[in-house]
Formats: sequence, C-alpha cells, structure tokens
Amino acid sequence: MAALINDTFIRALLRQPTPYTPVWIMRQAGRYLPEYNATRKRAGSFLGLAKNPGYATEVTLQPLARFALDAAILFSDILTVPDAMGLGLYFAEGEGPKFERPLRDEAAIKKLAVPDIGSTLRYVTDTVSQIRGALHGKVPLIGFSGSPYTLACYMVEGGGSADFRRIKSMLYDRPDLLHHILDINARSVIAYLNAQIEAGAQAVMIFDTWGGSLSAAAYREFSLAYLQRIVAGLTRDHDGVRVPSIVFTKGGGLWLEDIAAIGCDAVGLDWTCDIGAARARVGAKVALQGNLDPMTLFAQPESIRAQVGKVLASYGNGPGHVFNLGHGVSQFTNPDHVGALVEAVHDLSRAYHA
Amino acid sequence: MAALINDTFIRALLRQPTPYTPVWIMRQAGRYLPEYNATRKRAGSFLGLAKNPGYATEVTLQPLARFALDAAILFSDILTVPDAMGLGLYFAEGEGPKFERPLRDEAAIKKLAVPDIGSTLRYVTDTVSQIRGALHGKVPLIGFSGSPYTLACYMVEGGGSADFRRIKSMLYDRPDLLHHILDINARSVIAYLNAQIEAGAQAVMIFDTWGGSLSAAAYREFSLAYLQRIVAGLTRDHDGVRVPSIVFTKGGGLWLEDIAAIGCDAVGLDWTCDIGAARARVGAKVALQGNLDPMTLFAQPESIRAQVGKVLASYGNGPGHVFNLGHGVSQFTNPDHVGALVEAVHDLSRAYHA
Repeated sequence: MAALINDTFIRALLRQPTPYTPVWIMRQAGRYLPEYNATRKRAGSFLGLAKNPGYATEVTLQPLARFALDAAILFSDILTVPDAMGLGLYFAEGEGPKFERPLRDEAAIKKLAVPDIGSTLRYVTDTVSQIRGALHGKVPLIGFSGSPYTLACYMVEGGGSADFRRIKSMLYDRPDLLHHILDINARSVIAYLNAQIEAGAQAVMIFDTWGGSLSAAAYREFSLAYLQRIVAGLTRDHDGVRVPSIVFTKGGGLWLEDIAAIGCDAVGLDWTCDIGAARARVGAKVALQGNLDPMTLFAQPESIRAQVGKVLASYGNGPGHVFNLGHGVSQFTNPDHVGALVEAVHDLSRAYHA
Repeated sequence: MAALINDTFIRALLRQPTPYTPVWIMRQAGRYLPEYNATRKRAGSFLGLAKNPGYATEVTLQPLARFALDAAILFSDILTVPDAMGLGLYFAEGEGPKFERPLRDEAAIKKLAVPDIGSTLRYVTDTVSQIRGALHGKVPLIGFSGSPYTLACYMVEGGGSADFRRIKSMLYDRPDLLHHILDINARSVIAYLNAQIEAGAQAVMIFDTWGGSLSAAAYREFSLAYLQRIVAGLTRDHDGVRVPSIVFTKGGGLWLEDIAAIGCDAVGLDWTCDIGAARARVGAKVALQGNLDPMTLFAQPESIRAQVGKVLASYGNGPGHVFNLGHGVSQFTNPDHVGALVEAVHDLSRAYHA
C-alpha cells in the first residue's frame, strides 16, 4: 500500500515533533454533511451504509474532500461486534441502536462466544482495505471499536439507556455474569482490532462511551481492566510500522492517570478537562487527543477560532497533541464551521511547534 | 420554633463529631413512594403540589415516616425562581419542565429582573414555615435552589436539552448576555435562599445540575463564579445558629478543589468520584456529601449494604461526611431498598466515629 504522505497524526500520537498540531473530528463522516445524507439515502439505511464497503468507503472520504483533516476514520458502528455475536443489531427510526436479542438471562450470557471475525465482520475489513486503497497514502486511517463495557451496556440494556439500570443491577448483584460478558467482549475486540490492523488500519481507537457512568471503583474493575487487556493484545507493529492506540473514556477525566498507565499511546479527553491540567497529570506517558466543546461549533467562526486558540494555548508547546472535539460533531453543525475549526488549528498551532 | 432533637446532619456539615454518619437522599420525597403519588394525584399536578404549602409539607414529611433519615428537604422545584421572573413554568406530560416564554432574544434578556421574593415566592417560604412547625425539631430542614447557570440553561433552552446548543452558542458568541442573566439569577437566588433561611431552613443546598456540561474554563467563569457570589451573600447565622451551605455540581469531580475554595461548608459529590480521593483533595476545608451510585438501589439489599460499606470505608474515620446518593433517587426504586440503605449507613458508620 502507498506510503504515508501526511504522517503528522501518527507522529503526534507517538509524541514526535510535527510542524503543526494535527486535527480530525469524531464523527467527521456524518449527518452534518449533505453529501453523507445523500449517500445514506442511496444506501437505504444506516446499516445498509455501514455494511456496504463501497458506500462506507465513499462516506469515509467525504470530509477529507472538504477539509484539510490529518486523519480518516473508518466509517462503521461501534456495535458491529455484538451484532456479529448474533444479538441482531437494528435501528428503530429516531431511537438509536437496539438489539433484537439482548442478554436478559444467565443462559443467554453463558451461550455468548467470540465471533469468527474473518467471516462475520468481513465487511469491515473489506472496507478498511478499500479505504486504504482510495486514500493513496494521503492521511492515515484510524480503525476503531467500542470498549467491552460500552458494548455490554447495549448488549444488556438492549439499546441506549438513561440510567443503565439493568447492567448496573447485574454489576452489583451478579458481577460474575458481567465479567463473563466483558471477557468475551475483550477477546472479541482484540481480534476485531487486529483484523482491522491487518487490513490496513494505521492507528486504532477504543471508544469507552459509557465508562464514565460508573463509580470510580466500578470503572477500574469493569471497564479499565478490560481496556488494559485489549491494549496488551493489540498488534503493535504492522509491516514494521508502529500502530498507535488511543483510549477514550467519555467522562473519564477523574481517572486520567489510571488510563494513561494501561499502555496505550494516547488518551482521548472530553471537553470538561482542561487539557493543560491533563497534560500535567499524565506527563510524558501518553499523547492527548481533544478536546474542544462540540457546541463551540454553533458559535460564529471568530468565536470558534478563539476557543481553538484557548485549547492550543492550554496544551502549550511541543509535541503530543492531536486536536479533536471532546465528543462527536453534532448532526446540526454547519459544515463551514468545521472548516473554520480545521483552519484555525493549522494556523494557530504552528507557533507551538517552532 | 422547636430545638433540634437530631442535629447529626448539621454537625457533620460543620465537620463536628457525630456518633454515626447522617444520611438523607436526594429526591427522597418523590415518585418512588406510593404515598407521594397519592398526594400528587389529589393535588392534580406537580405544580399544584409544589405550589400548595399543605401538600408540599405533606410530601416533605412522608419519607421521614418510613425511614430514619437525618434531614428533611423542602419539597419544591428548582425552577421556581425563573417562574417568579415571569417565564411561565409548566410541565408537559412526560417531557419535564418547560418555559412558556424562554429567553430567545436580547430584548427579553434585558427586561429580566430580580423578582420580589416576598410576594412571588411566598408559597415557598410558607411551605418552609409549615414544615418546620410539623417537624417539631425532629431533624433539620434543608432549603434549596438551582444554581444560576442551571437556571439559565432552562431559561435559554426553554426546557431540558441533550446538548445545550442555545445557551452554549450564547456563551461563546455573546458572553455579555449570559453574564447579564447569571447576575440577575445570582441576586435572585441569594434573596430566595435568605428568605428560606428567614422562614426556617436550617441548611441550604445549591443544585448545579448542569455545570458539569461545561468546559473547565467555562465552568469557572459561568457557574462557579456565581456560586461563590451566592455563598458570600447567604445569611450565615439565623437566630444565633449557623446555617451551613452545600454546593453540588453534578459532574464537577474534576474541579473539587475549586468548589471547596468558594466558602461553602460542604460539597456534594456525584457517584463517579471516589469519596476518599475527594477527601484527600479538599482536606479539612469542607464536609463532603454523597455519593452512592443511585443504581445501587436496584441491587438486592445485601449488595446495597456492601456498597454502602465501601463508600463509608473510602471516606474513612472521623467527622465531615453526610451520606447520600450521588444523584436523585430513581422513580423506579423499591422503597424497601431505600430503607436498607438508611439502615446500613447507620449500622456500619458507627465504627468510623468511635
């Protein structure tokens, strides 16, 4: 495959010098882009889009055509793994992801098994290969997965939840059952991410969207321990090139030191952390990715630029920062404002890399 | 009014020795209690209940009849103040609080004024007096208000919000307008809480429910600064007795040192903080209130007891801890499980106060 032309993202993750701070946007291929909505319409549904390598490749590349982003991220869903386990992922109109067969009893939990990634998730690795081919080395491609705990939330609740009553009842009453699910999820995620790396993913990110809903003690036992196992199980070099890993626990700002200690290359930050304070806490252990409030993008371009400047100033001089939002870009965002953000990051960050 | 028989709650807030750890539950008078639902039905609506001192007194006392709680909290709504400003609070069935006249333009914002508490919120101070009379000094009565920023969220958004797009656009583009709202809110809340103290509230709590949705810098400028102004403006002694204050920013665990420095007597913690780590961070500056995961109450009583034990052990020996959940009790909670919690706190905490 083509050599990498713009490697600032990879270098920043490895805390190596770069001429400016690289930037990409969580959910950069998404509903705020009219061209994404057009492709989705042609695909017929979200899953029709995510499961078709041609369409998924197309939408992955769309934001790169508009903005000078320093990385592409595989277009997929975080719930592909439990879907491959046979839980039956579907999207009810306006309701978010759901499972036809959630884990509602001990028998169902005991039957759960690591899926054969090569067959059940072939559509994902095929998409990774196609995107790599289409990128021609322009920027690196990020692969990703949901974290074991986040996957378990959906698997047990059967969909999104405002309070996570079911999984937390299990956590407090039957921790053995939850650990069983998490063990299978962790082994599945390792196989899944390594298959993405094998297919061409040049960095991988684990989204722990719901770890931040746990108490500190439960987070360590039921989320972080499995994140650590995954990081230890990842292919570190592919074809002689390092494949950096990023771990992002939304709402995990209290536990940054613990997250930075699990062996990942970078830690994602949501917008509630001051990135300078976060850097002081984790030291030289990891790079940091983040962390502009996504709602900043509803302000005017000059306000966006000012807020970008504040994040860059808070991080300060030197390498190890990948600019991003602190959460996915809202579907209601004006695409021109994303452009203003990317331009501001590139312009304003050079001073910190002199 | 009657002298206080059980003053463990007040003493714990002032970091004075107590024989056990006092406990109360956020939203302890609420929908998980069948007797509450019966009163609400008679009242006709939530606002009919909250605005009627007789009904509001009745539901305030209901959880005390069931459980050995160490404090009562005024039954009211956090949005009484903007309602008194003329925004028109109403509850759409199943949708949470809304305002008929949200702040949608500069003219509306500039017209906003501190309401005359004595007339517009007389129903609240009357309720406080009635509850004090009915309590006969059994336990102290907590008064409360929403924080200036939290009130502003509802005032600008017009109701609850998943992303706070409107208020954050204002925050980033027109901080002057938001500061104007917050200034009026802070002055109103000071007058409101002092009126509650005058009427008999023996401690006050400020609920900053949405401060945790802000970036660290925005939290300091748009929420914490106003919390500090309120604490400075509160009546500290009433009839020669100290009236302690509690500040609770949900999701504020990252900023505990800053919150503990504003002059309040106690800081509320949500369940994501380890309370022992929090105590180490704030030292002897404040008492701590919290912080069991409310979802623990969906587990079996023996699991609840074990989790209560962990929070108590994490806080450790000595005074300064008021036990509570890390957020309001869920309406789906089994009342017997609340009983198990209260009993466990009283039983297990004595060892830490020997």
